[in-house]
Amino acid sequence: MTDTSINLYQVSCVRIGADILTKCASDCAAAGAKQVMIITSSPIAALAAPLSQALDARKIDNLVYSGPEGEPTRADLLQALAAATDFNADFVIGLGGGSAMDLAKLVAALHQSPQSFEDVVGIDLLADRTLPLACIPTTAGTGSEVTPIAIIEDEEAELKKGVVSRHLVPDFAYLDAKLTCSMPRKVTASTGLDALTHCIEAYANRFSHPVVDRWALDGIRLIAENLERACEEPNDLAAREGMLMASHLGGMCLGPVNTAAVHALAYPLGGEFHIPHGVANSLLLPHVIRFNTELEAGRYAQVAYALGVEPTGDARADAHAGVAEIERLSSVVGIDRRLSDVGISSNALPKMAAAAMTVQRLLKNNPREVTEADALAIYEAAL
Amino acid sequence: MTDTSINLYQVSCVRIGADILTKCASDCAAAGAKQVMIITSSPIAALAAPLSQALDARKIDNLVYSGPEGEPTRADLLQALAAATDFNADFVIGLGGGSAMDLAKLVAALHQSPQSFEDVVGIDLLADRTLPLACIPTTAGTGSEVTPIAIIEDEEAELKKGVVSRHLVPDFAYLDAKLTCSMPRKVTASTGLDALTHCIEAYANRFSHPVVDRWALDGIRLIAENLERACEEPNDLAAREGMLMASHLGGMCLGPVNTAAVHALAYPLGGEFHIPHGVANSLLLPHVIRFNTELEAGRYAQVAYALGVEPTGDARADAHAGVAEIERLSSVVGIDRRLSDVGISSNALPKMAAAAMTVQRLLKNNPREVTEADALAIYEAAL
Repeated sequence: MTDTSINLYQVSCVRIGADILTKCASDCAAAGAKQVMIITSSPIAALAAPLSQALDARKIDNLVYSGPEGEPTRADLLQALAAATDFNADFVIGLGGGSAMDLAKLVAALHQSPQSFEDVVGIDLLADRTLPLACIPTTAGTGSEVTPIAIIEDEEAELKKGVVSRHLVPDFAYLDAKLTCSMPRKVTASTGLDALTHCIEAYANRFSHPVVDRWALDGIRLIAENLERACEEPNDLAAREGMLMASHLGGMCLGPVNTAAVHALAYPLGGEFHIPHGVANSLLLPHVIRFNTELEAGRYAQVAYALGVEPTGDARADAHAGVAEIERLSSVVGIDRRLSDVGISSNALPKMAAAAMTVQRLLKNNPREVTEADALAIYEAAL
Repeated sequence: MTDTSINLYQVSCVRIGADILTKCASDCAAAGAKQVMIITSSPIAALAAPLSQALDARKIDNLVYSGPEGEPTRADLLQALAAATDFNADFVIGLGGGSAMDLAKLVAALHQSPQSFEDVVGIDLLADRTLPLACIPTTAGTGSEVTPIAIIEDEEAELKKGVVSRHLVPDFAYLDAKLTCSMPRKVTASTGLDALTHCIEAYANRFSHPVVDRWALDGIRLIAENLERACEEPNDLAAREGMLMASHLGGMCLGPVNTAAVHALAYPLGGEFHIPHGVANSLLLPHVIRFNTELEAGRYAQVAYALGVEPTGDARADAHAGVAEIERLSSVVGIDRRLSDVGISSNALPKMAAAAMTVQRLLKNNPREVTEADALAIYEAAL
């Protein structure tokens, strides 16, 4: 840690365990909340019912607001903000995957704020958050319940835009593995590989830090131990718990260190082709690691060991064995493996490479410099 | 983690690295502080000067208040509260070891509060904290900058009394290893062994939890790697950083899981004999582990591996090798090894055993039940 400063902005209250929705309702009551807006997304709106009932039981007025199924757009945000105003919300809960939680984070931040979404896109531009905020993940991948980040798709620009601010770190996070059991296998797999990408990119990062390294390696180990089982046996609570904790650890890495080239190159897949974030990351992860290991293998060898690879004494070979293990894992859990599998053809790649170059806030973290030609070559390898 | 709930009350902002006092001053400014009371203790009051100057530079009025050198008494607390009132404090910073930080925590909690110290002794009795609070450790042992605990000696009852409340978790913690370089060797050693005791007692605990287990084992590994070096070469910043992080990790274990029989049996050594907390713990640690391993060796074998013991396949033998390693480490760093070394004679032991029995809030965490006769036998073994 010598000569390396780090700032950790943490959730003040994290509750882990069963029956978490009741605890959330009692925290709302203790915080004096009178009008609680629960932001969720349509496929999992049923999961919000017990929370709504727990709030009803405490005579706390509440609104279950179903946002979009996919990643929220600017229009979705404006609509949710209008609903918050109509409802006169004084407490916001995000219940769902990254989409629902990110929407909730921005509603809590911008409700009756003098700042608009455009004002706060970027790093540390959000002046404050106007409402208390709780997040409850129902997927195990994004870790958004613990990050200072919210991503919105600018539908006009066909670009994903990120707001990064310590004020987006929630006040409360609730982790109940049972809430993640309803994920379809495909979502379990892609969100799990998203969490893996968070951990790997924070560990093999130009700005890595010993504190974050521990979280990252723990997260990788938990994913290696639990992802296949969570996919095979969706109600195996121990596997779900392992994945939820791995996702949380991955999220903890995102604030202080953040991700790198995999995420930068994945952005155009989301913005233009609407490929889910976790799938986009997992398509690119092995190819970016191969590109990076040419320069520096040691960190990727450690990633491989956390994935269960036995050390052979040759770091580069071990790093490549780690990549093979990631590819095996992706294949076993049924994730698409190639860009062509998700409908991207070779003539789209140059525009994607140019778009990826605009994500310098993440590219600068990558252990190896990525030029536009490099980005194109990585996309071609992944095609 | 199945069926195990856990609540983590976390410091919202943790800053780690060099030049931390400047950052603390700018956080005070951002929080709108006008009257900052810096609570420190006499031997390290010089360390507060740069912080005071940084606040001066921002035109923030500040008072450096030197509390007692040893663990604070009720009279010390009342005196500090009176000083906070005279100064009209609106922000409290604890700068020092556990004594200074604990005093700061209670001043921030009870300043102009309707509650008195007597009202809040115990668990979850503190209704709120009235002032914002930052903690800056200058020792590496207590981890108080991250715990919900403050300990005060009731000088009339000759008993240490604990206040445990989530409201005692600071808003800000600043970790700068340089601030710990001034510790004399003896303090480095005893506080380091205190941190080791926190980690071991949270790991081998009736209420252990996977989340806390990771912190505890990381802390034990860091202490095994760094304590001797921190004692031998007081200005080795990497060793100091390792110890400061270990202390922080040990502190993180104390809120959700807390300690057990070592701490319960150490209380009477502090209350009646004024033996520093870290020394009291390290005197008892090997003897309590030996007592506990008779019932269950597996967890103590894991502790031994984190300490660097090679597994032999026999968990009990490995656990005992771990105890031997703790005794070797204590001896190398120059810690007293026996109760008789610190002036306790055999005729004091029965009263100590009776006093230890009153600390049921910690004894209930111990993996093996401790009767008064057991406590006496442990003291006799440590004599």
